[in-house]
Amino acid sequence: MQELMYEGKAKRVFSTDNQEELLLAYKDDATAFNGKKKESFRGKGELNNRISSEIFRKLDERGVSSHFLERLSDTEQLVRKTAIIPLEVVVRNIATGSLVRRIGIEEKTALTPPLLELYYKNDELDDPLINDRHALLLADITPGELMKIKEKALEVNDVLREIFEDCDLSLVDFKLEFGSTGNGDIILSDEVSPDTCRLWDRETGEKMDKDVFREGTGELVPVYEKILQRLEDSTCAK
Amino acid sequence: MQELMYEGKAKRVFSTDNQEELLLAYKDDATAFNGKKKESFRGKGELNNRISSEIFRKLDERGVSSHFLERLSDTEQLVRKTAIIPLEVVVRNIATGSLVRRIGIEEKTALTPPLLELYYKNDELDDPLINDRHALLLADITPGELMKIKEKALEVNDVLREIFEDCDLSLVDFKLEFGSTGNGDIILSDEVSPDTCRLWDRETGEKMDKDVFREGTGELVPVYEKILQRLEDSTCAK
Repeated sequence: MQELMYEGKAKRVFSTDNQEELLLAYKDDATAFNGKKKESFRGKGELNNRISSEIFRKLDERGVSSHFLERLSDTEQLVRKTAIIPLEVVVRNIATGSLVRRIGIEEKTALTPPLLELYYKNDELDDPLINDRHALLLADITPGELMKIKEKALEVNDVLREIFEDCDLSLVDFKLEFGSTGNGDIILSDEVSPDTCRLWDRETGEKMDKDVFREGTGELVPVYEKILQRLEDSTCAK
Repeated sequence: MQELMYEGKAKRVFSTDNQEELLLAYKDDATAFNGKKKESFRGKGELNNRISSEIFRKLDERGVSSHFLERLSDTEQLVRKTAIIPLEVVVRNIATGSLVRRIGIEEKTALTPPLLELYYKNDELDDPLINDRHALLLADITPGELMKIKEKALEVNDVLREIFEDCDLSLVDFKLEFGSTGNGDIILSDEVSPDTCRLWDRETGEKMDKDVFREGTGELVPVYEKILQRLEDSTCAK
């Protein structure tokens, strides 16, 4: 019996017969600016389900585990059930977007080492940037767990950069979420897709992610199709 | 020869004949919401000069040094010259103001241990909240220096709480700035006054700081006069 547990902007989350597993159903909706811009793109849910499944698989191959168990259908995947930690962990390799607006750093500044930011996952408050101490007040985690989350996010960055480099894509920045399992482990959750990563073509610099929708500069579906194609091609090339 | 080096919202900074010293002249202006609300209060400059001088003196007595050297006149003080570090360091003992709006924490929540926040001192960007990594990108300081700044801010909090407790005032939160001296030391600079501290009467809970102006709930000058009076009385009582 599948019961809708939660509906987010891009996915629905259903219970399954197994207490320890959840079903994620990817929707065709695209939102930006915390839901202020919203549109539906036929095929987007399937693309993100396939892309995210492929990325989670590639991460796992390289030793980075996540909540992902298997892709069930065009738009659905099975994941390990975790309790959501209400943090968005952003890792940035190149300065763009809100970082440039917030601190006035020059667009495209290389960030070495990568820059990590925490945001409080809270729609009503517009997902505000927070510091470590705010995070400890807001999320039910210990300082040690927060440190582990930050280390994992930077580890994911290292591996994701490789994965995307094999696809001729620069990983500009991305957002991760983590969940805690019953036994106290903290694992990568949510999704990894062009909705949550900024990806620039390494040759042309072309934006190949949700920014084409945010900025209204291109067609979302063909761009996401290219990402999926490159991920699949890079697998075959191995 | 005194030359105007810099004019801020509440003070003018002049050079002096001594290369290592500056003159601060406190103005009668009060501003709030990053200058969007502005008014002038006859006598405010003198009050803040006296209050800040008295607080720096009391801090020094308790082993916390600062840029303060001496009060020169009603509205002027002599300070050690430092290079401004473009950070505002906020320490909060009780949740109120922008913290409540930002993260949705309940008003008046006790923050134990105190909560430290960094803001980037930049009027054009509206002094945004930043994290430690942003601070290292934006201010020309090392991770060790940032750690020292945070430790000093918490030390100032401990001592300031005692100073204000002797005045029957709760230190709710406050903003500090630091400067670096030629020889690499980092010292407390700017001012410490009801413009930069939230102070609540310990008996009545009455707000006795710039919030009376920000919120339009009272007369600024009589409130600042009370603060000065209590600081002077607490000195005499020793």
